[in-house]
Amino acid sequence: MSTSSIPLNKTIDHTLLKPEATPAQIIQLCNEAKKYDFYSVCVNSSMVKIAAKELTGTDVLVCSVVGFPLGAMSTKAKAFETRCAVEDGAGEIDMVINLGMAKSANWSDLQKDIEEVVKAAAPKRVKVILETCLLTDQEIKEASQCALKAKAHFVKTSTGFSTAGATPQAVELMKAVVGNQMEIKASGGIRDLATANLYLKMGVTRLGTSSGVSLMEGKSSTTSY
Amino acid sequence: MSTSSIPLNKTIDHTLLKPEATPAQIIQLCNEAKKYDFYSVCVNSSMVKIAAKELTGTDVLVCSVVGFPLGAMSTKAKAFETRCAVEDGAGEIDMVINLGMAKSANWSDLQKDIEEVVKAAAPKRVKVILETCLLTDQEIKEASQCALKAKAHFVKTSTGFSTAGATPQAVELMKAVVGNQMEIKASGGIRDLATANLYLKMGVTRLGTSSGVSLMEGKSSTTSY
Repeated sequence: MSTSSIPLNKTIDHTLLKPEATPAQIIQLCNEAKKYDFYSVCVNSSMVKIAAKELTGTDVLVCSVVGFPLGAMSTKAKAFETRCAVEDGAGEIDMVINLGMAKSANWSDLQKDIEEVVKAAAPKRVKVILETCLLTDQEIKEASQCALKAKAHFVKTSTGFSTAGATPQAVELMKAVVGNQMEIKASGGIRDLATANLYLKMGVTRLGTSSGVSLMEGKSSTTSY
Repeated sequence: MSTSSIPLNKTIDHTLLKPEATPAQIIQLCNEAKKYDFYSVCVNSSMVKIAAKELTGTDVLVCSVVGFPLGAMSTKAKAFETRCAVEDGAGEIDMVINLGMAKSANWSDLQKDIEEVVKAAAPKRVKVILETCLLTDQEIKEASQCALKAKAHFVKTSTGFSTAGATPQAVELMKAVVGNQMEIKASGGIRDLATANLYLKMGVTRLGTSSGVSLMEGKSSTTSY
């Protein structure tokens, strides 16, 4: 997929994942997403219903995180959380992989963990968060391969809740595996236009950021993801 | 409940919640828990089966976290994760409250969020993690009241994944509400015997710590929770 055809606003998942976020703050997030016509709002699963109601009649999707942010929830619970989120109105799912499986090179179970979420979400699309800051280069490649085999739609770098966010190195490794067969979402630490453009030029088609408004206004933001 | 009758080892939930923990590390955690006869091992829900198998024939329980660590997962998904964890062998459940509900003073939904987990866990006991570092004093009291009304068994201070862990002030507020009707678990930052004893003297009956071995050996630990 060529990035040049996507306007900046439609690369942005406008994100609010703080555990203490209130419904009022989620509604504000939705209002900003409508104003700038972002691709989606990215929220925790308890907030999907509220966001979906707020975005009715617009083309802004609700993206729900699942197994977030540790990915260490049982596979069946991740699949169930996914089904509930889709029922509540989610149009995309951002799941976190089971990092313990990655760290023990248990790629078959890791692939199954992703597959169960992909099945539960269908026909909605699934992004697979690798949490690249916790993985070696080889593990990033293997996990990307699992996401590809599991027929997920995106690989995504980071939760924004671990030791670091997206890096160009991680995106390069992911791109080398998925090529044009999957899309890539960069997230964590994307707070200015220069950083956003850096990833978009690398072939990233989606950005996860809480600084969407600043990006659209051409300002850098001090908001942490 | 008097604390003086509980030996130190039986106050400890021996804890490993890092997302990248491997099955081998969980097995080691179980071996340490058997050696010191801790009350439980506290693990993520994908690790419950492995831990339960390892602890078969001992009186060390498996404690599974649920909705962890943000608590922002939908209530029905928390209840389902709880059911799965109990099926997989969990003997106790540590759930995180929905902090957005607390911050918007939506105490009726917060109570329901806890009730659904209590029902799903029954007859296993439920600890309710308030994440006190994100709450005001008044919110700590209200949330403790919700846990009491929802017939949960413990209030617990912290996940260990937010801005701070247990404080004596938070425990005091919780104790003022729950009295002897619920037990209290202190967690986050408990790395030496002086800190452990401070909480036990306040009426805390359970400690969540990754430093259980050091506590038993009378050493302080540099391990972060």
